[in-house]
Amino acid sequence: MIQGIGAAAGVAIGKAFVLPAWEWDVPDRRMEKVDLAKEFERLYEGIRTSKTEIEFMKNEIKETVGVAESSIFDAHIAILEDPVFMSEIQGIIERQYKAAEVAVKEAIDHFVTMFDLLDDEYMKERALDIKDVGNRLLKHLLGTPEITLPSDTQPYILVAKELSPSQLVHLNPENVLGMVTMAGGKTSHSAIMARALGIPLVSGLENKLTKPLQTGDLLVIDGDDGRLYLDPEQEIIDRYTEIAEKQRRRKEQLQLLASVEAVTRDGYRMRLAGNISSVKDFEQAIKYGAQGVGLFRTEFLYMDRPAFPTEDEQFEVYRQIVEKADGHPVVIRTLDIGGDKQLEYFTIPEEENPVLGYRGIRISLDSKELFKTQLTAILRASVYGQIKILLPMVSSLEELKRAKGFVEEAKRELSDRGLPYSDEVEVGVMIEVPAAAAIADLLAREADFFSIGTNDLVQYVLAVDRMNEKIAHMYNSYHPAVLRMLRQTVSAAKEAGIPVSVCGEMAGDEKALPIWLHLGVDTLSMSPQSLLRVKHRILNSSLKEAEEEGRYCYGLSTSEEIEAELTRYLGKDPVLGR
Amino acid sequence: MIQGIGAAAGVAIGKAFVLPAWEWDVPDRRMEKVDLAKEFERLYEGIRTSKTEIEFMKNEIKETVGVAESSIFDAHIAILEDPVFMSEIQGIIERQYKAAEVAVKEAIDHFVTMFDLLDDEYMKERALDIKDVGNRLLKHLLGTPEITLPSDTQPYILVAKELSPSQLVHLNPENVLGMVTMAGGKTSHSAIMARALGIPLVSGLENKLTKPLQTGDLLVIDGDDGRLYLDPEQEIIDRYTEIAEKQRRRKEQLQLLASVEAVTRDGYRMRLAGNISSVKDFEQAIKYGAQGVGLFRTEFLYMDRPAFPTEDEQFEVYRQIVEKADGHPVVIRTLDIGGDKQLEYFTIPEEENPVLGYRGIRISLDSKELFKTQLTAILRASVYGQIKILLPMVSSLEELKRAKGFVEEAKRELSDRGLPYSDEVEVGVMIEVPAAAAIADLLAREADFFSIGTNDLVQYVLAVDRMNEKIAHMYNSYHPAVLRMLRQTVSAAKEAGIPVSVCGEMAGDEKALPIWLHLGVDTLSMSPQSLLRVKHRILNSSLKEAEEEGRYCYGLSTSEEIEAELTRYLGKDPVLGR
Repeated sequence: MIQGIGAAAGVAIGKAFVLPAWEWDVPDRRMEKVDLAKEFERLYEGIRTSKTEIEFMKNEIKETVGVAESSIFDAHIAILEDPVFMSEIQGIIERQYKAAEVAVKEAIDHFVTMFDLLDDEYMKERALDIKDVGNRLLKHLLGTPEITLPSDTQPYILVAKELSPSQLVHLNPENVLGMVTMAGGKTSHSAIMARALGIPLVSGLENKLTKPLQTGDLLVIDGDDGRLYLDPEQEIIDRYTEIAEKQRRRKEQLQLLASVEAVTRDGYRMRLAGNISSVKDFEQAIKYGAQGVGLFRTEFLYMDRPAFPTEDEQFEVYRQIVEKADGHPVVIRTLDIGGDKQLEYFTIPEEENPVLGYRGIRISLDSKELFKTQLTAILRASVYGQIKILLPMVSSLEELKRAKGFVEEAKRELSDRGLPYSDEVEVGVMIEVPAAAAIADLLAREADFFSIGTNDLVQYVLAVDRMNEKIAHMYNSYHPAVLRMLRQTVSAAKEAGIPVSVCGEMAGDEKALPIWLHLGVDTLSMSPQSLLRVKHRILNSSLKEAEEEGRYCYGLSTSEEIEAELTRYLGKDPVLGR
Repeated sequence: MIQGIGAAAGVAIGKAFVLPAWEWDVPDRRMEKVDLAKEFERLYEGIRTSKTEIEFMKNEIKETVGVAESSIFDAHIAILEDPVFMSEIQGIIERQYKAAEVAVKEAIDHFVTMFDLLDDEYMKERALDIKDVGNRLLKHLLGTPEITLPSDTQPYILVAKELSPSQLVHLNPENVLGMVTMAGGKTSHSAIMARALGIPLVSGLENKLTKPLQTGDLLVIDGDDGRLYLDPEQEIIDRYTEIAEKQRRRKEQLQLLASVEAVTRDGYRMRLAGNISSVKDFEQAIKYGAQGVGLFRTEFLYMDRPAFPTEDEQFEVYRQIVEKADGHPVVIRTLDIGGDKQLEYFTIPEEENPVLGYRGIRISLDSKELFKTQLTAILRASVYGQIKILLPMVSSLEELKRAKGFVEEAKRELSDRGLPYSDEVEVGVMIEVPAAAAIADLLAREADFFSIGTNDLVQYVLAVDRMNEKIAHMYNSYHPAVLRMLRQTVSAAKEAGIPVSVCGEMAGDEKALPIWLHLGVDTLSMSPQSLLRVKHRILNSSLKEAEEEGRYCYGLSTSEEIEAELTRYLGKDPVLGR
């Protein structure tokens, strides 16, 4: 048994897979003086590409894991913008005429050595960040491919000298039983992500192993106590098998709910749908019992590629998803770039406040071809199932009317081309700008349905950028102002007789259930990982009691009171283990 | 007569004051190779200081002239961040070992020559911007003082080769009858500012004068037709004296209203107060008949200085203002930095969306000493008149309660120190975050008054950064959602029996009057320049008709309809000439 640091809870038993270190061979290369400017240009280009990549990962993590975890990558971007780090690199290029990659490598080594010397856990973690970012930059300067994790093997315990958030992004939680790292501790960014992904992690084993671990070694790890057993005795295996078994049974018990409908004890039926970004996401959501798609974030079709996807490319994806939905509705949100989501091939001028800027429907309405291509692709897929179009960032009636005009135009175009589409495709509005909530009654007359995007709504109503660490504590979905906006929106929808769903993170927060039941929301759409938890809670709820609780919360006047009350009401659950 | 370009309307007759050109003597200076890094540091430092200065001017212009005009300075900041311009400067330093100021001078000359060669009016104007910014940067690198305009002479017609927005910022419109520039046209930034300030401007006289104008020359200028008369005949003087006379009479007729109360034809009395940033502002507001101060933006006490103002320094300013108020209330807004207002000596970490960031009361509640110093200074001044404290960016009941706790603490401290304060000082809330409007009823129980900050409120409700050119057209105060938020706020105030005023730009927009009269707002607080116009409109209004119009607008469902209706209702006015 080797005692390390328990960085993420849970136990695992399995074979080790040892990840090669992400380190590049950087041959010493010098330039002619005259090439200085060109070398700077190479450096800047590498920095730009690295930034785009990091932004992309940040978005993936934000959508699939959570906002707090995604902000890890802000630290990485900050390093690429850090004047001290940058001037060190520039200095080496400028004074020693070394190639950009050599300068980057030397600067990384310099800072990592310095930070490591400080013998302070926090600074050591920051050294890891510098290495991660630096290696990414080197990768682009050298043109080497990224090391990825195996996805087609048996489930394994991942072993590495150290793991960076960049590596964990692409990791499939189904395949990784647990993780072991030599470096790192409880506060490392990888530890934060491991906890969010629910994968056990034992860290801090540097200098504690007598021989390096090998791929194929049998391991038992205990992320609660920070223990690693190498080639353990049968007794240990038995003990941990039992613990793992208990964990597995809990998971299984939840998994049994996948095919059950989400109905309260007193018979109120809630539709639970998935928030997805890809066909793969939807497969996972279906596994967890999603009744269709409540939010398909199409921007991921547009990201990480050199140009806009064609109508055919989009159609193919939409068709696959609607066919998999098995008759359940699929809500496709039209392109929602801008804000913190950028495309490499569609430049939005630098904005001082991108979240209050050029984004969502604002861009679509300005970009006729872009918008129409997407709408035609969606309409073409509509003959294969039940598709609904959802418009992001709508803040006025005019925008909704103009967007609907585009849909009609796309239909006419399809008719002209002799291609079929369904005439039943509904057009709905994402309620996420406060203005939309305030005029929900006017919008409800023109919209076929509402979907409430709580993430942005909360952000705007409270004037709090939730990615901003200084004020993130003020971002609270249970603010009475938010609850009132929600009520106003749902009432307007009910009044007009149109359905209303919730698709922000709040939909996956079990605490919020009494609010949704009290208001009478039809559908909750959430990340696949949350579906079974929420369904379990619904099955154990009573509509009558929840309505009463919701009503009670509407009488409270601060976020603190409301959240405390909902937490108390929720209580612990033996199956969920929390 | 010399024919130029009429860049800003109006006529003027007076003596010329010729402004020396803002051009620096830059001696050629080269460095040792080893000093490269130091020279870059000097350059970056100069850029930083220039940016801070430009940001400061931008804010002054935003508050006193308007948002559109202030965005001129964004172009200036963009130049300092332009990679092409910057790499040109860096290249000269790096390759030719020239001093930073020499490199800047050469880069300016290079771009200005290039742009001028293009023979395109737009590019020529951009050349002016580069010169303006470059000269500012040179000023810092050389340590030379800025050339300022005379303020203690007789009113004059300002003559210059060219005028930059930086120079116009510090100009006193009372002293400048008109302006003449050799360069520039209708689209120059100076022309935009001249029009906003209401100062006639004739431009584009380059190469049209047989001899240069001299300080003391008698001039007649006609900004409507773009004419300049040098030493004009009596006939010309007479004709233009008559035109100027007519303009003057209109102004006088308005000025007569200064001492009149703002009462509608059917007897509804509205209090009109001033939005001010300094004692000087308030003097002007009083001249235009302000009944006290509706919004004192204290952040200008904190700007353009090396450290926080002391309690005594602040007290002195507050006391002067409240004494000048002659018994009328003076509403002092506590420090509202953050967003786009930064202090040089109080660094807020770079934010992705500063407008949704760490600002206003959020900073004050975190900075105990900073906040208490301001509150004690305000309380000490309260014995000299009627002072009210206004809290910016409040979004929850807790914040209001905590801020009131600070006020009580400040009072206890003053008692301990044996210093007097008034026990009548009211504490009010700025309603500018949507959350505050949504829970206005809860806030009204704890607040002594409301002041609606329409600028930020509109921004948040519509999720539109009004400084963002791409979407500025979407920033519309007449959006039905905004009107509803306003109604909700005023109703809550009325219900709780507390007064409510409006202090955003919308308060000075004559079109909005029917809205305020319909809702029953008590006070409108605006920039001094708007006071007489609005008062004139109120005197010509009927409460009954306006209420009806307001009610009618609340029945409309788009900004376009509402704004068109209010414009129609307002009509043209012979005295205002518009």
